[in-house]
Amino acid sequence: MYSSARPLITFLTDFGLAWGPVGICKSVIHGIAPHARVVDLSHEVPPFNIAAGAWVLASAVEYTPVAVHVAVVDPGVGTERAPLALRAARGDVLIGPDNGLLIPAAERLGGVSEARLIENRAFVLASVSHTFHGRDIFSPAAAHLAAGASYEDIGPAVDAGALVPAPWRAPRYSEAAAEGEVVLLDQFGNVRTNLESSRWPLTPGRTARVRTEAATVELPVARTFGELPAGQPFAYEDSSRYLCIAVNLGSAGAQLGIRPGHAISLQRVE
Amino acid sequence: MYSSARPLITFLTDFGLAWGPVGICKSVIHGIAPHARVVDLSHEVPPFNIAAGAWVLASAVEYTPVAVHVAVVDPGVGTERAPLALRAARGDVLIGPDNGLLIPAAERLGGVSEARLIENRAFVLASVSHTFHGRDIFSPAAAHLAAGASYEDIGPAVDAGALVPAPWRAPRYSEAAAEGEVVLLDQFGNVRTNLESSRWPLTPGRTARVRTEAATVELPVARTFGELPAGQPFAYEDSSRYLCIAVNLGSAGAQLGIRPGHAISLQRVE
Amino acid sequence: MYSSARPLITFLTDFGLAWGPVGICKSVIHGIAPHARVVDLSHEVPPFNIAAGAWVLASAVEYTPVAVHVAVVDPGVGTERAPLALRAARGDVLIGPDNGLLIPAAERLGGVSEARLIENRAFVLASVSHTFHGRDIFSPAAAHLAAGASYEDIGPAVDAGALVPAPWRAPRYSEAAAEGEVVLLDQFGNVRTNLESSRWPLTPGRTARVRTEAATVELPVARTFGELPAGQPFAYEDSSRYLCIAVNLGSAGAQLGIRPGHAISLQRVE
Repeated sequence: MYSSARPLITFLTDFGLAWGPVGICKSVIHGIAPHARVVDLSHEVPPFNIAAGAWVLASAVEYTPVAVHVAVVDPGVGTERAPLALRAARGDVLIGPDNGLLIPAAERLGGVSEARLIENRAFVLASVSHTFHGRDIFSPAAAHLAAGASYEDIGPAVDAGALVPAPWRAPRYSEAAAEGEVVLLDQFGNVRTNLESSRWPLTPGRTARVRTEAATVELPVARTFGELPAGQPFAYEDSSRYLCIAVNLGSAGAQLGIRPGHAISLQRVE
Repeated sequence: MYSSARPLITFLTDFGLAWGPVGICKSVIHGIAPHARVVDLSHEVPPFNIAAGAWVLASAVEYTPVAVHVAVVDPGVGTERAPLALRAARGDVLIGPDNGLLIPAAERLGGVSEARLIENRAFVLASVSHTFHGRDIFSPAAAHLAAGASYEDIGPAVDAGALVPAPWRAPRYSEAAAEGEVVLLDQFGNVRTNLESSRWPLTPGRTARVRTEAATVELPVARTFGELPAGQPFAYEDSSRYLCIAVNLGSAGAQLGIRPGHAISLQRVE
Repeated sequence: MYSSARPLITFLTDFGLAWGPVGICKSVIHGIAPHARVVDLSHEVPPFNIAAGAWVLASAVEYTPVAVHVAVVDPGVGTERAPLALRAARGDVLIGPDNGLLIPAAERLGGVSEARLIENRAFVLASVSHTFHGRDIFSPAAAHLAAGASYEDIGPAVDAGALVPAPWRAPRYSEAAAEGEVVLLDQFGNVRTNLESSRWPLTPGRTARVRTEAATVELPVARTFGELPAGQPFAYEDSSRYLCIAVNLGSAGAQLGIRPGHAISLQRVE
């Protein structure tokens, strides 16, 4: 499993960095597992945007050592939605709410090999609030695992097939087309999708027809930004192996009118 | 006092994350106390907003192990305002300017048990600038404490009763009402106040009359967001045990016209 | 060189904190050098703004212990621009693209004593993407150095004189005037320049004539904000020893119409 000498906890939320909750969670972790390292993946997931959080987490986990991954984008905090600890085939544990947030990352780590509810009181704070499970449940559970507690002790096993699925429309791949969803526009305006390039590879130098709710356009396929003139939109396999639409030195989202949540399809042009 | 094996320094400022000062301070700390962990509470306190900084710090400290807490929201940098190191009853040390910023956190840690000025040249950088005491005084002082220096050596004791008080109107509690101040709107638009729920508890299921400069409204009291329909404002005890006004899946600040600095009072409705 | 017990890696990019790339890079570093500390200098450099990134890095490096500094503001990613590892006279190594980003920091560390290309495959990830060299080349190279690899093994030496120069107009200093460039406006609206106060010292209490593309104004020279009434613009030596224009409790950029990229000159008024 993960290294006991200097275990890694990754941390992703929609808490923002202004008002303290991220630091509070890390302080809780430090009190339980002072030798763990916490690496922030993002705390600026748009509020309540489970799909964006799931994408960021999935894009990261293959580049971490085996780790405990804590993710909290949780509009249902305080309701009946269950707190989960999922073991992935690679050996990682993913901690967060049962709302689909953890599923794409688990799939990239080989799939869910075991799913458990966080119910053991020894893994959470003595007093659990109704509104801050990141501090009271998820962070301490991750810290106890990083400090050496057994995954099997965290709570009862549940059927992995009954978990809330990935928080976006399921991608469909055929020889002719890949159909999925625009998940987010990043800070450069690149259009990030849930389409796996391993399932539908792009060939640099060819042309792709891209259809969204905003428009249908034919775009060159390239490897990287510098291959194209400034302002030219193109399709490429992004560094996380999702299909992506970008503009060299510009914003593809703004230029093409594409927005998160849009259905998107790509077709090969002969 | 705090663990010498892996001491914790919490860090809060209004420096923002764009232009480097936070990383510079942490680099200074690393040079003096390489085995300390630094946990950021916030660096996005609104510029010069001492009240918001004090609230974030106070909301965090009960969830940290015993630590050195450095806080810098300091419109008076370079003037005669004193640099402080306060010992709290729990054993923590709070480092920052004498402008009220540290007081609410110290109170939540059991009160100020000892107050000292940072005057010992061995605790600060060799050259102290006029505009960046976070780097030159506060961070190195915290690092020296975390590295094992004696609190008593940091400088002369001063009268704790003569410190600048908490940076907001003092809350007043009676059986009928709690009166205080709106300190900030968080990233979800929740209205955070300086009213301690331990002093004036709310009863879920009842109704509270909330009066601010914007309006007077009667709101249900709830435990958490999911108990209410989307768009419904309500009052609750927030996870930091302050009284709070929120809207499920919405912004209470925007919806009710409430702004930081407003006087606020809550009354129980029979 | 840098401490092998707990080496320091500083990290600066224009990646932003929302979408995960910073955390991915740190996870890669953790996998290679689990005992290194990573200190973030900024990840909110304006996208593709090499000058702003160079300024932030240069303003920080004198306050760190000897370290590995990774900086990635890289509009040319995936093109022929070379990946560099520069050794500075103080002993630090600077890692990043050959686009001028590293040069001002290297100068503040005593100048480039040795320049090498990052070409050794053992210093980078097994698979190098076309669009994310921060993750695949720069972060792992820094981590391998922090973990004890020899700088000399990273790749072939190149002529330091042939590197892309500092990414701003070269400052010129005479007895009468200092002429340079406005590099950025910080979060307070302070006007940060590339003019070194060690080369052209200001005398508090005197007057300076400041000329930019927006206007020519005569400003008092001060040591710090609190010496002036609110709203008063002034010139001072900033805490990083660059000449700076500020307004006490206000924004000099907004008030004087000064913007990044403006030419700026200061003259002494008798």
